Amino acid sequence: MSQRDRDWMQRALMLAAHGIYTTHPNPNVGCVLVDADGVVVGEGWHHKAGEPHAEVHALRQAGLNARGATAYVTLEPCSHFGRTPPCALALIEAGVKRVVVAMQDPNPLVAGRGLQMLQQAGIAVCCGVMQAEAEAINLGFLKRMRTGLPYVRLKLAASLDGRTALANGQSQWITGPAARRDVQAWRARSSVILSGADTVLSDNPSLNVRWDELPAEVQSVYPYQALRQPLRVLVDGRGRIPASAKLFSLPGEVLVARQQAVAAWPQALTEWIGPTADNGKLDLQALMQELGRRGCNEVWVEAGRQLAGALLQAGLVDELLLYLAPKVLGDSALGLLHIAELDSLAQAPQLIWHDVQQIGDDLRLTLRPAVKEK
Amino acid sequence: MSQRDRDWMQRALMLAAHGIYTTHPNPNVGCVLVDADGVVVGEGWHHKAGEPHAEVHALRQAGLNARGATAYVTLEPCSHFGRTPPCALALIEAGVKRVVVAMQDPNPLVAGRGLQMLQQAGIAVCCGVMQAEAEAINLGFLKRMRTGLPYVRLKLAASLDGRTALANGQSQWITGPAARRDVQAWRARSSVILSGADTVLSDNPSLNVRWDELPAEVQSVYPYQALRQPLRVLVDGRGRIPASAKLFSLPGEVLVARQQAVAAWPQALTEWIGPTADNGKLDLQALMQELGRRGCNEVWVEAGRQLAGALLQAGLVDELLLYLAPKVLGDSALGLLHIAELDSLAQAPQLIWHDVQQIGDDLRLTLRPAVKEK
Repeated sequence: MSQRDRDWMQRALMLAAHGIYTTHPNPNVGCVLVDADGVVVGEGWHHKAGEPHAEVHALRQAGLNARGATAYVTLEPCSHFGRTPPCALALIEAGVKRVVVAMQDPNPLVAGRGLQMLQQAGIAVCCGVMQAEAEAINLGFLKRMRTGLPYVRLKLAASLDGRTALANGQSQWITGPAARRDVQAWRARSSVILSGADTVLSDNPSLNVRWDELPAEVQSVYPYQALRQPLRVLVDGRGRIPASAKLFSLPGEVLVARQQAVAAWPQALTEWIGPTADNGKLDLQALMQELGRRGCNEVWVEAGRQLAGALLQAGLVDELLLYLAPKVLGDSALGLLHIAELDSLAQAPQLIWHDVQQIGDDLRLTLRPAVKEK
Repeated sequence: MSQRDRDWMQRALMLAAHGIYTTHPNPNVGCVLVDADGVVVGEGWHHKAGEPHAEVHALRQAGLNARGATAYVTLEPCSHFGRTPPCALALIEAGVKRVVVAMQDPNPLVAGRGLQMLQQAGIAVCCGVMQAEAEAINLGFLKRMRTGLPYVRLKLAASLDGRTALANGQSQWITGPAARRDVQAWRARSSVILSGADTVLSDNPSLNVRWDELPAEVQSVYPYQALRQPLRVLVDGRGRIPASAKLFSLPGEVLVARQQAVAAWPQALTEWIGPTADNGKLDLQALMQELGRRGCNEVWVEAGRQLAGALLQAGLVDELLLYLAPKVLGDSALGLLHIAELDSLAQAPQLIWHDVQQIGDDLRLTLRPAVKEK
């Protein structure tokens, strides 16, 4: 593996990232074809499930120039006939001489068979170039393939002193417009926007992606015509959400997760009846398994302090994003997270810092669990 | 003003910073003497009140080489006879040809007279080189000279969700050892360590500087022999702190601020009787004025949520340092700041981000008031 290989893979990763808003439930993949003189003869990325994979875009662009070229692909080429024929076969037929891959595809339908197919055709194969970076662009897909569960991001927003609303309930807006645009971008890339009955009852939110409110840099790579509404999932164990809630009237699918069916529900939405956990509430682990079965890679949670705390304490949160506003609300204001009362500091859920960024007037802190509790 | 002037002033500022732990109540000042060939012939910084000023150290080192040299000084040379003779005079007598100064000294005893004295002696004077940087190393001294009040830093430490202790009172340690060493460094540079009766009654803290616990980079510039204990100030309006409190038995001065004298107080400490504010408590503005009168430049506050919130709401905090631990305590745990309940978000005290640093496992957020309320 040479520095040149890393440079081309870097380019393939950059291409792959163009798909983050649209490939659900598929992974993001990029491909660059480089000829013997070090000239790019084709490149592409996977846009959308059902459409050609990255390798096919690049091969079409290269045409006969693919013969003898090296292909850089951010994920092992597929070996199975799905909605499209296997990419490993397409690379072989095009006469590619060498294939450099960032990582194996943990999808049980592939899992090394793509690389094997290429090697058996006499193609030189190198795997593992920039693997960490390739993992990072498909956190959700990879986790689902490995565990059956989606990658869950919990979004929180609070004042410096960890408060989300005044004692009188006023909560809009604690964070600024740039933070709200940033939230729109996270929603847009997710398979699911998840919330709970408390939030719907108190804020009546839309929980959708509003193209006009996306950051300009997202709009520039994600045209309005391609807009995809993530599945909205509502945790409503006891069936408290009224049919009049605003989000039911908006385009896009809704899944309501309940502990028992609500009779005579007037709307054409999907109801999922889940098991009850030890605490008497909906089993959140089972819900995440169900979302994994439905092909959901990334789940974006915007919930009140009960549901947010329950997900965190159940060890179901992979990433916590806290938007911190530079203001103080005081200790009469409402708290951020409800968890069962702790007897000692050693019991406190521990996280590690992953990223800190200023977003407009606010700070966005990204953390991941220190030790994944399961 | 040339780039060369800026480079030498940068060096003088670096020298000045050596004094931050020891110059109280004096400002930090550095001086570099450079001859016509661009060679440093002398340099120095102010170590300690009563000892020579920066210029004198540099002139002594230069000896006869000072003749014809340029002096770079981070603060206007003094013009008055204090505990030492005026530095402006010393520069004149040494035959310095040009003096470059970062900023005028707002001390009413100087305030331009030093520069005037130099100019009248035929010395070329240039003022304002790296003024912002020079302001930054003497925030406390400069604020006191301009307003009579010290520069107040409020230290807070909390979990991600803004909690300082469990419901059962357990609070040691939320932040890690690196954050506690960092706190020792802030204590060491301050004129005052200020706390309140609640904190003394619940934690019985020492509120002193412990040389062994200073960060290694501070120990390397601040020898054990030079250790200075800041004045400890206790806000104890109603006289609740018992004479047995640990901090009374430790070396260093203590000032207890009360609303009325406590009879038969057994210890030799300073009691200051302050006025009562509209809220029935000790007037904190009057306390800060008193500390300014006593020559205190920087006040470091480690207080509970009542006193911390009162200082913040009174507009007396110049800088807020929040150590944020990457853990969650939940909403049954105790809050960070008590302020009067707000009716609308627009009333919330607003700050702006000044600095964000990772300190060990914790994050240190530094903020300053967005608009100074007075």
